[in-house]
Parts: sequence; C-alpha cells; structure tokens
Amino acid sequence: MSRYEQAIDVLMQGDRHRVWSLVVTIFGDLAQNKGDEIAAQTLGRLTEQFGIKAEALRVALHRLRKDGWLESKRLGRSSTYFLTDFGLEQSALATPRIYGLTDPKISDWVLLTTSNASESREGDATKIDKDGRVVRIGAQIYLGEKRNCPFSSNTLVTNFDNSPVPDWVRDQIIDAKLMSGYGDLRQQLQNVASTIPLQASPIERAALRTLIVHSWRRILLRHADIPKGFYPQSCKAVECREIVLRLLADLRRPELSELSDH
Amino acid sequence: MSRYEQAIDVLMQGDRHRVWSLVVTIFGDLAQNKGDEIAAQTLGRLTEQFGIKAEALRVALHRLRKDGWLESKRLGRSSTYFLTDFGLEQSALATPRIYGLTDPKISDWVLLTTSNASESREGDATKIDKDGRVVRIGAQIYLGEKRNCPFSSNTLVTNFDNSPVPDWVRDQIIDAKLMSGYGDLRQQLQNVASTIPLQASPIERAALRTLIVHSWRRILLRHADIPKGFYPQSCKAVECREIVLRLLADLRRPELSELSDH
Repeated sequence: MSRYEQAIDVLMQGDRHRVWSLVVTIFGDLAQNKGDEIAAQTLGRLTEQFGIKAEALRVALHRLRKDGWLESKRLGRSSTYFLTDFGLEQSALATPRIYGLTDPKISDWVLLTTSNASESREGDATKIDKDGRVVRIGAQIYLGEKRNCPFSSNTLVTNFDNSPVPDWVRDQIIDAKLMSGYGDLRQQLQNVASTIPLQASPIERAALRTLIVHSWRRILLRHADIPKGFYPQSCKAVECREIVLRLLADLRRPELSELSDH
Repeated sequence: MSRYEQAIDVLMQGDRHRVWSLVVTIFGDLAQNKGDEIAAQTLGRLTEQFGIKAEALRVALHRLRKDGWLESKRLGRSSTYFLTDFGLEQSALATPRIYGLTDPKISDWVLLTTSNASESREGDATKIDKDGRVVRIGAQIYLGEKRNCPFSSNTLVTNFDNSPVPDWVRDQIIDAKLMSGYGDLRQQLQNVASTIPLQASPIERAALRTLIVHSWRRILLRHADIPKGFYPQSCKAVECREIVLRLLADLRRPELSELSDH
C-alpha cells in the first residue's frame, strides 16, 4: 500500500461520506470561481479515488442539478459541470471559515438575554435560535455576533470584556458530540500528516484535499464561527484547523487544467 | 388644623410606622455624628408629634439598646441617647442613598450569568442572591455592581453598553409592589409639599423631616441602588427622590441644641 493509498484509507475512516456532499466539496475546493468547469471525466477519475462507482456519481450529479447546485454543459460526447449562482454563493459563504480566513474576536460577540415571556411563544428567543447565527447557552441566554444578531428591543445586549469565559459556557457552545468529533478528527489528521506522499500527482493532491476539506467542514460548519476564547479548553478545534491549513498548503491546489490534461 | 398638622397627617397615612424604626430614623437624620446625643425629653417631644405615647417610646428605646443600636447615659434625673458604633455604621451605610448623594452609572453595573448547575444546589446563584448586592432578573441571570459582586470564576460577567435596558428587565428589578409603593409615596409627597408650613419650629422641622426620610428610606432600601436607566419608565422613584430632596432642603435640619433648648 503506497503512502497515498494509506492517506486516503485514513481519511475514508469514520462516518460514511455521501457522494453528492463530496462532489460539493470538490467544486468548493477546485472550481469556486465563476467560469470554472470540471469535466465529467475528471469528476469520475477523482471520485474513483474514493472507491465511488460511476453510477453513484451519476446519481449524485443528477441530484445536485435538481437541487440547483450544479449545471452541466455538453461538449460533443463529453460534458462539463459547474456551480450555479446559488452553488457559487453557498460555497463563497463557507470558504472563509474552511480555509481559516476568519478570526472572530470576543469583542465582536455579545450576550443576548431574552425575556422569559418570549420563550414560551414563537418569540425572539426561538426566532434567533432557529436563525443559527446565535448560540443558545441557557434558558433565556444566547451568544451572537454583534453585527449579525437580529435582536429586538426586547433583548438585553451586553458585551464581553477581557475576563475568561467560564467553562460551563464553553461546554454549551461546543457540546460533547462536537468535542469527541474534534478529538477524532485531530487523530485522523495527525495520521494523514505522517503518511502524506512527498510527491503526489495533481489528481492525488485533489483527492486528498477533497477528503481533508470534507471532514473538516463537516464538523466545523456544525457550530458558529466563534472566537478562540469560546472553545472548551481541551477542545481540539484550533489544533485541527492548524493541521488542516498546513496539509492544504503542502498539498498545493491543482489547476483545473492539470486535472483534465491528466 | 394647621398646615403643620395637615402635613403630619398626610405623612402618617398608609403603613403603620413602628416606633423603634422611627427612632432609628430620628438618630439617622439628627444625630449621626460620633458624639451626637439626644435627650430623652427631646425624643419624647419629637415622637409625641406622631401621637406616640411615652410608654411606647420607652419600649422602643429598650429594644434598640438591647439590639445594640443605641446606648444611653444618665445625667442627674434625665438621660441622653446616642448611636453605638454599630448604629453609626448602619446609619452611615444608608445615608448616601437616602440623601441622594449617590449617582450609580450603568457602566458600573454588570450582567452576571451563572451556570444552570449552581442553581439547584447552594451554589453561586443562591449565594449572590442572598447577599442582596445583586438583583435577580432570571433563572441564571443577575445584575450587580462591578465592584461589589462576589462572583466566582464560574460566573460569566458581561458589560452594559449605551443601548437602553429592555422593559422586562426593568420590571424584574422594580416589581409591581415597589412600583405602586413609589406611586403612593409620590402622591403623599406632593400633598405634603402643598401643605408644608412656611414657618416651622425646630421641633416641627425635625418631626416632618423624620416622617419624610422614614417613608423614603423604607421603600428605597428595599431595592438596590440602581442607575436611572434600570427603573421602569413609569416608575416614580426618580421623581420621589427629587421631591424628598427639595422638601429636606426647605425643612432645614435643626441643630440638636435648638431642639433641647425648646
């Protein structure tokens, strides 16, 4: 088993990756600019690295077109795929977090306290909770980014100073499931780091990048983009981010032309 | 009925004033400095204004000596009373608030959020609540003065900015009973203001001051010394304070010598 195969093997462990979701990751990593296209053949060769059959890819591509993520274009006997405007927008939203370009500050976050009354009905609390831009840490208590919080005049807004955030608050933000998820990912990433091929082909780099980004975004996007001071002390999220960014730097992103020329 | 008698009448309405409590107010207003003494005879003449019988005063003075508030000294056939160190200390604590010398700022207050866990046991929440230096506004949520809060590292501390405090928070701080208490007091004070004698003797001034301070401190000290922005919009507390201070300025505090010479 080559180092490359070992690395793929490590990254395929754990949760099963859905094909359509992997394809979204592929486009997000390789073809996120307006005008970028990936040939069906290239997609086939790439997903083959993960043991995905041609038929499963076809089904996934069909679904992604139906859901408005992808469009396709015929070119003689072959076809190419590209992100729709919706797909481009969704990818652009997630990109800064995935590639470590954000650096949320505690001073940009606020504590939101809603009245007891608004809990029982479809009031502020429920609304801001469902919105996903705030984190619930208690019956009437939420954390949110100042600029993103759709709060009413009924919400008490208070600011964080420099004092450390207590452990129980951090535990509400990153729950036990996310904690163990980050622990597992850290282990997986460390194993990948030690088996990563020194010389990898464009298609191999694309495949490894896809799986790394995929595992990373699947846990990362399950919680808000919080400042470092909000993570539980023993959470491996920050460490995971460092390894992911290092691995992605080592596995230089191939040009689309490098992949189709292959 | 003279204007003085009318004013006394208005101030004696409502809750019955306990004699020992009125005596504490008398000492707080007239004899709060170390070395100040009030003759038993003067106390008798003053409480007589409120219809208090000599026997009731004797009982109250006995109780206050027993409780460590007052001490007495024999001078021939008469005796004088004065505050103990404990009594002086207690009076000094309440004085700034009663005489409107404090001006709490919202920026000096913080929101305290305790963990859910500490509620069910004799934890932080219960402790800081019993302490009386914080105001409970929700299950895990308290307001407190920054410098006065005995909070543990388990408490999340956040700051107020300049945005207005929502109504539901204000209603938690000043409850319905206090609201109606302030409403009644405002009415009473306005009535007093319109019947106050233009020329009052020292003993009359002392008597009126005692009843005004007494009614004022009895409601005022039932809640924390909060910034103006924490009172419900329709609360009469700030207005009461203004009238009290104006009345006390008009009814110049008599010297102890003026009262005993009488």
